[in-house]
Amino acid sequence: MKNLLIASTSTLHNGGYLDYLLPELKEHFKGCSEIIFIPYARPGGVSHDDYTAKVKAVFSTINIAVKGLHEFKNPSEAILNAKGIFTGGGNTFLLVSQLYKNNCMTVLKQALENGTPYLGTSAGSNICGISMQTTNDMPIIYPPSFETLGVIPFNLNPHYLDPDTNSTHMGETRETRIKEFHQFNNLSVLGLREGSWLDVKGDSIVLKGALTARLFQPNKEPLELPAESKMNF
Amino acid sequence: MKNLLIASTSTLHNGGYLDYLLPELKEHFKGCSEIIFIPYARPGGVSHDDYTAKVKAVFSTINIAVKGLHEFKNPSEAILNAKGIFTGGGNTFLLVSQLYKNNCMTVLKQALENGTPYLGTSAGSNICGISMQTTNDMPIIYPPSFETLGVIPFNLNPHYLDPDTNSTHMGETRETRIKEFHQFNNLSVLGLREGSWLDVKGDSIVLKGALTARLFQPNKEPLELPAESKMNF
Repeated sequence: MKNLLIASTSTLHNGGYLDYLLPELKEHFKGCSEIIFIPYARPGGVSHDDYTAKVKAVFSTINIAVKGLHEFKNPSEAILNAKGIFTGGGNTFLLVSQLYKNNCMTVLKQALENGTPYLGTSAGSNICGISMQTTNDMPIIYPPSFETLGVIPFNLNPHYLDPDTNSTHMGETRETRIKEFHQFNNLSVLGLREGSWLDVKGDSIVLKGALTARLFQPNKEPLELPAESKMNF
Repeated sequence: MKNLLIASTSTLHNGGYLDYLLPELKEHFKGCSEIIFIPYARPGGVSHDDYTAKVKAVFSTINIAVKGLHEFKNPSEAILNAKGIFTGGGNTFLLVSQLYKNNCMTVLKQALENGTPYLGTSAGSNICGISMQTTNDMPIIYPPSFETLGVIPFNLNPHYLDPDTNSTHMGETRETRIKEFHQFNNLSVLGLREGSWLDVKGDSIVLKGALTARLFQPNKEPLELPAESKMNF
């Protein structure tokens, strides 16, 4: 049975890394003495080692050990054997490229469908959708495909932002961009605001956190879904 | 000799379509009785016909006829025979996909290098760079390549936005995204604010409009370039 925690962001404004999720994570990864961290999304500034160290520091406070996927000789085997998995944020184009390059996309899907507890934040959440085509990230690298895990039956837009009504900027709003996506793709998109996450247990998907989320369905007006909504559209 | 006008945006806040550029366009397309408009970037809401009609209305005020590229049976031939070319904004992933699909990328580069006067706005400017990898657009469609025209020797970020120092949002700033691009790509990127454009005549590239532009070079601190700067970095 799938057991996923899919969060818009790792960090809230003025909060520490994963702070607001920590009580959830304790429960989510109960029984896992060690999890694997996938640092692939991080495009630099921070090495895979340093990124993993940051995750280790947080998880040590709930007595869970962390190993970076980059430390394994055979990453796809490591994923299949993992007790729990966390994919951190960064750039989704990079994350998807690296997952394909290391033959990890299919096995990660397999692991998640077999019930390995999973945490995704930002780019690590994006890949849970059918495709990465509703990411906000810059295409800094050309991935072999935009298809992602499809462990939820819709797409996500993490870090969802409402249009700024005071803005004089002429670039597209997030809502406009998602409407453009719908011209070519017949998939629902959930705009997940910072502080929201999805709790996935088997086929049940529930919106968690204090905020509403904005649901964009093809050929329908967007809907605001309250916290605790079941995502069975 | 190349003769390009590469603008951050078609429209300024509170302005009409192409309004602020009209005096320039009169000069830029002098001697062209007709130009071809490439509407491919527009992802919907507006048809190619309607998008072209909007362009026609503006260019009629400076006595230039406009034909949409979608009206031609053989678009690549039409590009090679064009007296002038304008590529409008929308979604860069879509524009690039359509240019490749219709075998127009190479001939468009050829036409521009042979001196056909060109106007690009937003997505139509993005494609003038080496690659489309510094676009702000959402990847709503998977293009066969991120490579673009390369008629200027660097990349563009149109609609460039400075970081909002009051924001509590945790998504990446534009500057952070461009720095991420530099982890994998050894190309300069020019952040072109709304109201700025590049005037390209042969090898000369000059920043026009009232604003400064922000230049991001690999492994260097970003620079603010004043209006009238020559882009010979």
